[in-house]
Amino acid sequence: MINVGIAGASGYAGIELVKLISNHPEAKLCAVTSNSYKGKSLTDIFPSMGGFENLVCEDLDIKSISSKIDVMFLALPHKISMKHVPALLEQNIKVIDLSADYRFTNAAAYESTYQEHTSKHLLKESVYGLSEIYRGKIRTANIVGNPGCYPTSILLPLLPLLKEGLVLGDGIIADSKSGVSGAGRSLSLSTHFCEVNESFNAYKIGNHRHAPEIDEVLSMHSRRKISITFVPHLLPLTRGMLSTIYVKAKDNADENEIRQTYNSYYGNEPFVRILKKNLYPSIAHVKGTNRCDIGIHFDEARHQLIIVSAIDNLLKGAAGQAVQNMNILFGLNDETGLNSVQGPL
Amino acid sequence: MINVGIAGASGYAGIELVKLISNHPEAKLCAVTSNSYKGKSLTDIFPSMGGFENLVCEDLDIKSISSKIDVMFLALPHKISMKHVPALLEQNIKVIDLSADYRFTNAAAYESTYQEHTSKHLLKESVYGLSEIYRGKIRTANIVGNPGCYPTSILLPLLPLLKEGLVLGDGIIADSKSGVSGAGRSLSLSTHFCEVNESFNAYKIGNHRHAPEIDEVLSMHSRRKISITFVPHLLPLTRGMLSTIYVKAKDNADENEIRQTYNSYYGNEPFVRILKKNLYPSIAHVKGTNRCDIGIHFDEARHQLIIVSAIDNLLKGAAGQAVQNMNILFGLNDETGLNSVQGPL
Amino acid sequence: MINVGIAGASGYAGIELVKLISNHPEAKLCAVTSNSYKGKSLTDIFPSMGGFENLVCEDLDIKSISSKIDVMFLALPHKISMKHVPALLEQNIKVIDLSADYRFTNAAAYESTYQEHTSKHLLKESVYGLSEIYRGKIRTANIVGNPGCYPTSILLPLLPLLKEGLVLGDGIIADSKSGVSGAGRSLSLSTHFCEVNESFNAYKIGNHRHAPEIDEVLSMHSRRKISITFVPHLLPLTRGMLSTIYVKAKDNADENEIRQTYNSYYGNEPFVRILKKNLYPSIAHVKGTNRCDIGIHFDEARHQLIIVSAIDNLLKGAAGQAVQNMNILFGLNDETGLNSVQGPL
Amino acid sequence: MINVGIAGASGYAGIELVKLISNHPEAKLCAVTSNSYKGKSLTDIFPSMGGFENLVCEDLDIKSISSKIDVMFLALPHKISMKHVPALLEQNIKVIDLSADYRFTNAAAYESTYQEHTSKHLLKESVYGLSEIYRGKIRTANIVGNPGCYPTSILLPLLPLLKEGLVLGDGIIADSKSGVSGAGRSLSLSTHFCEVNESFNAYKIGNHRHAPEIDEVLSMHSRRKISITFVPHLLPLTRGMLSTIYVKAKDNADENEIRQTYNSYYGNEPFVRILKKNLYPSIAHVKGTNRCDIGIHFDEARHQLIIVSAIDNLLKGAAGQAVQNMNILFGLNDETGLNSVQGPL
Repeated sequence: MINVGIAGASGYAGIELVKLISNHPEAKLCAVTSNSYKGKSLTDIFPSMGGFENLVCEDLDIKSISSKIDVMFLALPHKISMKHVPALLEQNIKVIDLSADYRFTNAAAYESTYQEHTSKHLLKESVYGLSEIYRGKIRTANIVGNPGCYPTSILLPLLPLLKEGLVLGDGIIADSKSGVSGAGRSLSLSTHFCEVNESFNAYKIGNHRHAPEIDEVLSMHSRRKISITFVPHLLPLTRGMLSTIYVKAKDNADENEIRQTYNSYYGNEPFVRILKKNLYPSIAHVKGTNRCDIGIHFDEARHQLIIVSAIDNLLKGAAGQAVQNMNILFGLNDETGLNSVQGPL
Repeated sequence: MINVGIAGASGYAGIELVKLISNHPEAKLCAVTSNSYKGKSLTDIFPSMGGFENLVCEDLDIKSISSKIDVMFLALPHKISMKHVPALLEQNIKVIDLSADYRFTNAAAYESTYQEHTSKHLLKESVYGLSEIYRGKIRTANIVGNPGCYPTSILLPLLPLLKEGLVLGDGIIADSKSGVSGAGRSLSLSTHFCEVNESFNAYKIGNHRHAPEIDEVLSMHSRRKISITFVPHLLPLTRGMLSTIYVKAKDNADENEIRQTYNSYYGNEPFVRILKKNLYPSIAHVKGTNRCDIGIHFDEARHQLIIVSAIDNLLKGAAGQAVQNMNILFGLNDETGLNSVQGPL
Repeated sequence: MINVGIAGASGYAGIELVKLISNHPEAKLCAVTSNSYKGKSLTDIFPSMGGFENLVCEDLDIKSISSKIDVMFLALPHKISMKHVPALLEQNIKVIDLSADYRFTNAAAYESTYQEHTSKHLLKESVYGLSEIYRGKIRTANIVGNPGCYPTSILLPLLPLLKEGLVLGDGIIADSKSGVSGAGRSLSLSTHFCEVNESFNAYKIGNHRHAPEIDEVLSMHSRRKISITFVPHLLPLTRGMLSTIYVKAKDNADENEIRQTYNSYYGNEPFVRILKKNLYPSIAHVKGTNRCDIGIHFDEARHQLIIVSAIDNLLKGAAGQAVQNMNILFGLNDETGLNSVQGPL
Repeated sequence: MINVGIAGASGYAGIELVKLISNHPEAKLCAVTSNSYKGKSLTDIFPSMGGFENLVCEDLDIKSISSKIDVMFLALPHKISMKHVPALLEQNIKVIDLSADYRFTNAAAYESTYQEHTSKHLLKESVYGLSEIYRGKIRTANIVGNPGCYPTSILLPLLPLLKEGLVLGDGIIADSKSGVSGAGRSLSLSTHFCEVNESFNAYKIGNHRHAPEIDEVLSMHSRRKISITFVPHLLPLTRGMLSTIYVKAKDNADENEIRQTYNSYYGNEPFVRILKKNLYPSIAHVKGTNRCDIGIHFDEARHQLIIVSAIDNLLKGAAGQAVQNMNILFGLNDETGLNSVQGPL
């Protein structure tokens, strides 16, 4: 049994972690922290979660928590995470950090996107938690930088094709759409019901923080500098994310080769599903699951490949992939605790 | 292991049954039928449900299905169910019927609400599947008439108080609100997205089919004729139901006595939760669970009791309660397969 | 041409006033104030409103504004309004106040519900702005206390029946449901998209501020103390309100008499529509209009009358009725600027 | 006063036309037809529309209707329109057809996308109703082929840049998102509330009927064959459309030149608004208006231009532009009847 702590348990990613760990057959939830609800039980904060009357949010006091846990999930804001990670590692606690603090290999890229990094030396140690691609390194990691939701939805479909040289690195466009839970639980006019409901818009064109994260990983795997055009949009729904990706295929590429490449990368992966020709993903088909669905349309004449990917931003895009990474870290099957069947509603 | 068949697997209640049985540790899904999708696999019909590529919808041919199963869930329209139930019972298959066909004790009440009943003799044998109230009889039943969603949300809070004589049978008002999935998956202008979205309305005032069902059960338990005022409304959301019930308390009733009565009926029930003073249920708190949350406000001066109850119409209001009844029928703990933790989103 | 000022123009009621006055053929928008957006133009704040690049939010400086206007709408929070009203009246500006500050006749009732009243003497002067009922007094008023949204949806259907003695004052129940815009534009977890979307709940049972407002008006018109049971609920939609009202009819009442009474009160009213038998209001049918739709179901055997009323909470429930009152104050037809045709979407 | 007939008045575009014509100061609604609701009044069909108790849907009998009207709007399905247009023209009735039947210049393009055209000779006579671009020809037209919603949202931003040679015709990508009303009022599982709500998906990639319409107009104006990559998506909201368009700029293009070009085309247009740098359109900002909002982001280093456009699919994308075209046809100002101020909710 893995003893688990969750920091930031009252945010949307945190609460998903609580749910997943509670339903996990090989893990036990031993400690939760929350800044806003200290001293309150999870059932008090979230009445939907019956049975947690005795699990009370405590301070993020690493000394006291370390003795109870084997692994800590950090569902904290960027910059706050890196304050706690060094101390956790010193206590031999494995860390899965859902913030951006340990996602970058290159400290300068992190710093130009976020802020000064206070534990740069750990960036070399940390492993990017895109489970299907980094599984080997995750197995022996002490710290996992869990990917952003947009990067997950874009990297999973692109990496196999780029690594195998089937598509060009230039001119990649990712038109992504996210549900509102991606913006978190803090208050802002842009998440007020009346401002979001019955609306839709693009935002942060040219300066979203996930673009450098995507670029760094794509570049690393194609051994050249790649910089995609990334436009995020806000959908009037609670959970789910869909990315429509436009990429140019190499001259001689054909759809079979693309499908075979996907098959060799993901054919045995429980959480990536390549859809048959003429079928495309839908948020309804992945909501509540840890799956990434990928559909492709290839216009051979124009060498234009259109890839549509869908994930649940709170699961494969955050808490689900974090638990998948915990499974890998502790030698369990990826699917443990993540494979319950989910209907369309 | 219980071998399970589901008839009408492609409707909303049917698909919830598929999901629950698939996630159930003591049950195995052996056969599914669907009129509209015969020959298609569940994954084809509902891409959200990966892993069912080989579970193909077949004809409702009782001879062929009976050999494979111990229990059959019928998620069929009213009137269709009763065509198949007698044959199933003859094959010694236990039946849990989600239609109204076996909910009534009184054939005349059924017939004046629905249509002629073609197997009236079975009405005496069938047990009303309101699990918490009829558990004893369900244990040995061969056929369970699974309650309607509105009746479940109204009977659970009212029955203990009526049986114990704490409230008056006259003048009960139930103002109920249901999500759109309650109307099923068939096409109708009233479930067209643009007609429901951003709207809300009352419907079938004075002639909804669930009113006679509620009245029959209330009357049976209070040994007098009770006839409530029932007004259903349609909410612009997919799943969930909330009933606000107005009832007059007996002259000497006080809130403590009411709470104690609930406690004696439901204190040990895993799926009924009585909320503390000043807390009221919300659809967000029960969505995805098999729970009925109940909150009360008692105005002693006026003897006016306001009860608010909330359920997920597809779970405690349909498929969840059906599986709870299966658990009871087969000697399992009520919670088996129904107790995964659910977050607020 | 009426010269109009709007204080609090950046809130939801304020912006509706801006829209209505801009589209009004006999009024001219001369000044707007906003605390949060001082110095910004309306088009900057609300890009949907093209053409207001030069209408800049100014301070609520009564001296400077008074010279430009004939009437001031106050769409300010309770308590803030009464700070400004005496000064406006001194400048001979007519005031239509959308807060609760001038709705009550009885200062004690106001004070026990809100806070100390700083200009009690004006309560006698102010007229309750339920247009259809108080039109005569509004004509000559200097200050109108514009009704709350819940009270409007409950009083319009109840007052004629109570005044004519067709229904009992005891045991009235109003089960009301409001869209989220009723909670205003300020930030709160209870209006965060993810917390409201796909949910529904009752709130403030037994202590909502609109109950005393309703009770005072009902009591005044029936010459006895009336105190209704009022339960508000929050709908997952932006605009609209529906009240389902349960009331006992006098022994000899029949539906015809009820309908005739409505006809004599509202037969010539442009903004109240009594629906034919078996038809009930829907939020979709009133959204975007200043209308109150009323449907009734009368169960003669039980003397139980069920009334369903629907309004757009921002129009007949706030800004629309305020403009209707302005029309009355200035001798215009009620419908001026309020009668554009609205479709169902 | 223009006497107006509307065929197909009970569909979503039809009902918007009814609303606009009813509110139009220079037009009078003289006849409406509906296949599904023959003999019923508009108020009966759409209770939101009070005051149309006497406007009854009649048969589309051109002889009888012609005598009453000057112009006929056809809001009929493709293929049905062309059955009636020749007869209307013979009666000297001006026709504004909202179907695709008269949008194409090239009969072959129409026929390969839709079906055989039964009045090809009229294609040369008909004018494409993209008001800002074809105003001159519309003035003297007898038949206007009103543009599709997707084409409107894509052509308005692209045409000026293509015509002036500022962008390349190759490699244009339009990632478009439409509200559900775009799918019309007929019943289909894909517009069932529970299937659309909380979901989002791409559809008809590579074979949507609007792509050939877009390609024909773009090609005509750039004197070469242009074929864009067009991916439509379905948004879980009722009305509104947003297109994110990716296009390569010519080598020496800069943002100023692009903005100046837009200014020279649209600077005096009441219904096209070019947003300032760093501002992007939102469906909330155009819903209920006849406006097309356009925002641009230009990455000079990569010559990558990102254009975001938003319209109300039922107004500028259908009925609103149709009325704008009527205004042009009859020598009125474009804005007549279309310029009421709209708020954000």
